[in-house]
Formats: sequence, C-alpha cells, structure tokens
Amino acid sequence: MTEQYISSDEFKGLLAGAAGQVNSALACLLEKHAGIHSDLKRAMAYSLEAPGKRIRGAMVLWCCEAVCGEIMPGAKAAAGAVEMVHTYSLVHDDLPSLDDDDMRRGQPTCHKAFGEAMAILAGDALLTFAFEVLAVEISDAEAASKLISVLAKASGGAGMIAGQVADIAGEKSGGGLEMLEYIHTNKTAKMFEAAAVMGGICGGASKEQISDLRGYGMAVGLGFQVADDILDVSASSEELGKTAGKDAMQEKITYPAVVGLDESKRIANDLADKAIESLSSFDGKADVLRQLSIELLSRSR
Amino acid sequence: MTEQYISSDEFKGLLAGAAGQVNSALACLLEKHAGIHSDLKRAMAYSLEAPGKRIRGAMVLWCCEAVCGEIMPGAKAAAGAVEMVHTYSLVHDDLPSLDDDDMRRGQPTCHKAFGEAMAILAGDALLTFAFEVLAVEISDAEAASKLISVLAKASGGAGMIAGQVADIAGEKSGGGLEMLEYIHTNKTAKMFEAAAVMGGICGGASKEQISDLRGYGMAVGLGFQVADDILDVSASSEELGKTAGKDAMQEKITYPAVVGLDESKRIANDLADKAIESLSSFDGKADVLRQLSIELLSRSR
Repeated sequence: MTEQYISSDEFKGLLAGAAGQVNSALACLLEKHAGIHSDLKRAMAYSLEAPGKRIRGAMVLWCCEAVCGEIMPGAKAAAGAVEMVHTYSLVHDDLPSLDDDDMRRGQPTCHKAFGEAMAILAGDALLTFAFEVLAVEISDAEAASKLISVLAKASGGAGMIAGQVADIAGEKSGGGLEMLEYIHTNKTAKMFEAAAVMGGICGGASKEQISDLRGYGMAVGLGFQVADDILDVSASSEELGKTAGKDAMQEKITYPAVVGLDESKRIANDLADKAIESLSSFDGKADVLRQLSIELLSRSR
Repeated sequence: MTEQYISSDEFKGLLAGAAGQVNSALACLLEKHAGIHSDLKRAMAYSLEAPGKRIRGAMVLWCCEAVCGEIMPGAKAAAGAVEMVHTYSLVHDDLPSLDDDDMRRGQPTCHKAFGEAMAILAGDALLTFAFEVLAVEISDAEAASKLISVLAKASGGAGMIAGQVADIAGEKSGGGLEMLEYIHTNKTAKMFEAAAVMGGICGGASKEQISDLRGYGMAVGLGFQVADDILDVSASSEELGKTAGKDAMQEKITYPAVVGLDESKRIANDLADKAIESLSSFDGKADVLRQLSIELLSRSR
C-alpha cells in the first residue's frame, strides 16, 4: 500500500465535515426554491437528503480549496448542483424499466415511496434545478457558464447517460473490457472528472491546474467504479445500503466478471497511483484529495 | 374577431419559415453533439425531429426580431434549447406511468418506438443538452447565464413540472377553475413566457421590453392551452396527431369541462386581446407576434 497523506481517522472527519457542508447547501438551496409544488418537493427532498456519502460534492469543495486555499461560496452551490445531478441519476436508474431497484441509500427507492410518475418528475426537477442553481448562485457569469457546460457535458448523452444506455445494452451481451471501460468512463468517471474541474473553476484554477484536476477526477472516478464492482461481489446489502449481488444477478458486465478479482484490485491500485500523480504540482492543501483516492481504493481490499 | 395584422396566409408562410430555421438549428446542434451514444441519439432525433409546429421556437426568433430587427445567431440556439425542453417534456409525459400515450406528432410515442428505458434516458439527455447548448453556443456569458436561469425556472419544479404534478393529482379530483389556472399557467404558459423573454434577451431588450414580452408570452401561453383544451373536445386524432378526447377519458380538468365551451372561447379571446395589448410599445416588427396570438386563438373557433 502507498503512504498515507493524512490518517484515515482524520480523513473520515474531513469527509464528514465536507458532507455536512454539502448537505446544508442542499437544504438551503431547496428551501430557497420558491414556488415548487409541495408534493414534488417532498419527493425531491426524500432522495436528495437521504444519507449519501457526498464524495462528488466533497471533491468539488476540496478541489476548490486545493487551488485557492479556501472553499468559495460558489463551490458550495456547485457541489450542491453535482449532488443534485447524481441523485437524479440514481432516481431514474432505479426505475422499474431501468435497474428496477427497491432500496437505495438504506431506504426504499423514490418510486417505491412516491410512485413511478412522481419519481420520474422528481428526477427531472432535480436535474433542472442543478442548472438553475449554477445560473442563479454563481455571480461570475463566465464561471457560471463554464460550470454549466462542464456539468451538462459530463452528465448528458455523451457522458453519464451514454454510460447508462451502454450499461443496459451490455447486460447479457457479454461485452469485454473495452465496453466495460466505455461504460465506467461515461457512467461514473466523467461526473467525478466534472466535480474536480468544477471545484477548480470555483477556485480560479489555471488551465494547467484544470488539466491536472481533470486527470485526477477521471482516475478517481474509474477507481471508484472498479472498487464498487468489487464491493458488489463481496459486501452485504446492509453494508451497501442497496441490493448487493445485483450486478451478477442482472448479468451486468463488471471488472471482477471480466478480468477477475485480483486483476480488478490491481487496476484499482494503479488508478489510485495515477490520481495521486496527477496532483504532483499541488501542495499539501491537496493531501485530502490524495488521501481520498487511497480511501476509495481501500473500500475494496 | 379582432383585426388582422398580417394575412393568415402570410402568417402561415412566416411560421413555416421560422419552423424551418428552428429545425435546421436542431439538426445542426444534434449533429455537432460529439460523443453521444448512437442508440440514444436515434431516440433523441426521432422525437426532436418529428413534425412539431415549433411555436415556442418561433416565438424566441420573433421576439428577438421584434426587439432588434433581426434574428441573432444566439436566438436560434435559444429556440433550439426551448424546443429540446418542450420535446423532453412530451417524451416523459407520454410514458406509461404518466399520460400513457401511444401517438405524438403523428407517429408512435418515443417509448412505443424505443422502449420505456430509452425514452426516459432520451428525455433526460434532451433536457441536459438544452442547457449545454445555451452554455456553449451563447458567446455572451451574461446572456447565457440569464437564458439558462429563465429556461430552468420555467421548466422546473416551480414551473412546467409543478403543472404536470398538479395535472396528475387533479385527475378525477374535480378541481375547480383555480386549480385549472395553476395547472395551465405552470404546465404550459410559463414555457411560452420563457420563450418570449429568451427572445428578448437575445435581442438585447430593455427591462421594460422584457416585462412586456413576459406579459405577451404568458397571455399567449394560457390562450394556447385553452384553445388546446377546446380542440381536444372538438377535433379528431388525425387532426391533432395525438389521441383526441383523452382529456375527458382521463377525467382531466379542462376549460370546457369547468366553465363550458362558450366561456372557454371567451377566455381565449380575452387572452388574445391581452397578448396584443402587451405589445403596445412595439412597432410593426412585432406584427407577426400579434398575429400569432390571433392564429392560436382561431385554432379553436
């Protein structure tokens, strides 16, 4: 194992702190969202305020801090927007015609709790609200426009949704490593990449810094998904807060299924190293980002 | 009937021309959308390129022209974004768990043609792409940010989606005129209002002009929905390109059901007058907008 940049205990404390900041940003943004239909708001809040790890949101905050030394107010709004898009994607992916999941983040999925129509609309509203938040809360219009462009590209038809389409098409097709990389890059890693870049934009990063953060986010995102695949094989539903073993049941292609468990762990390790290397031009303020890549990897050991 | 500002024939020609500009903007934007998953793109294009009237898109172009005398390049992108959001809303509203419609714009609905999962994802991708288009194509970041804010507010949980939630809740509940106005204002009129305001922003409108265009768009949007309710009672499925008589079948609350057919026609007439009054400070370049309100109304006579 590589060296520790900060202790795991300290990291856990920092992640809890960042998650707290993301959660209060989300609650505040939703509260300010005037005129929203009350039934809809209940469904949105149910999924948005469920106990998520907020890793993507934390990454926005920490990348901002790594660049400029503090968490700018815009970074909190951007972290909220990223978590809104992530949550909408879970709500829609869980639907009966997609992954058909009953449990998510330790509670019934949105459509189980509110019905399918409301879950579709709550997902739509969360996605729309993410862009509204960026347009309204980011006072520098240049930054707002860039953030919206980055988030839309990462989450849209050439990003997260492309990954989801390939994931559905890949079920039972026995696709190989190439398809697996396409799915994971698009479905998961591009949103991590976007989170890192958005944090950088909020901190006023240079072009070179943005490029480094892009490499970092992509490596962490891919590593996260490999670790997630490994966990789905080895952890219980209770530990995951969602149905375990579903990938195999649905015959989804995963790293352990395609390259085996040992090779999957080696790939996750390599990606953690790559993530850390991407941050070589950053000082100690980026140690929490370095440790994040180690912690995400160690989930699967 | 009120006076004609331009002849109906000339208006039809202008609308066809505007629809052509919107269609070519949509085709061009989708073509440029690199990296999009090919199956997904097919489903998006299927719904986006179906023969819609493009009234919302035309309104963006014409409001821009009414303000500055020409259709700025940004207005075409904005018109495309508005039609993308409108199309996504149709794709999702037609889903089995929502309105469960089989036909739309004279062809099978997206989920009938591509399956439910793909229709959900194609809708999501169209919505996301609308915001990407505004962030990427509008070179003036201040304008881009304003356009995104206006579109997101109109189409989100305090706008179009709120109307859809109320519409579902209102079925069989026998809600009165107040609920009907809430549904139509949110579900339909706010998107017309947004289209008018967005056209104004693209043309560099003053605050007063934006305010006038807001009033115009809202009145036309409400009138359009009243006319649509009347048509659903009186026209055939073939004329509509979608299932006729569905409102009554689903016991949706509509203007004819709540206030009767004659009163519905009177309301539509009043709204056309109100729309025209809103444009009193505009010169002859706004005549096509004035005529639009008359033409939309006359659909229901």
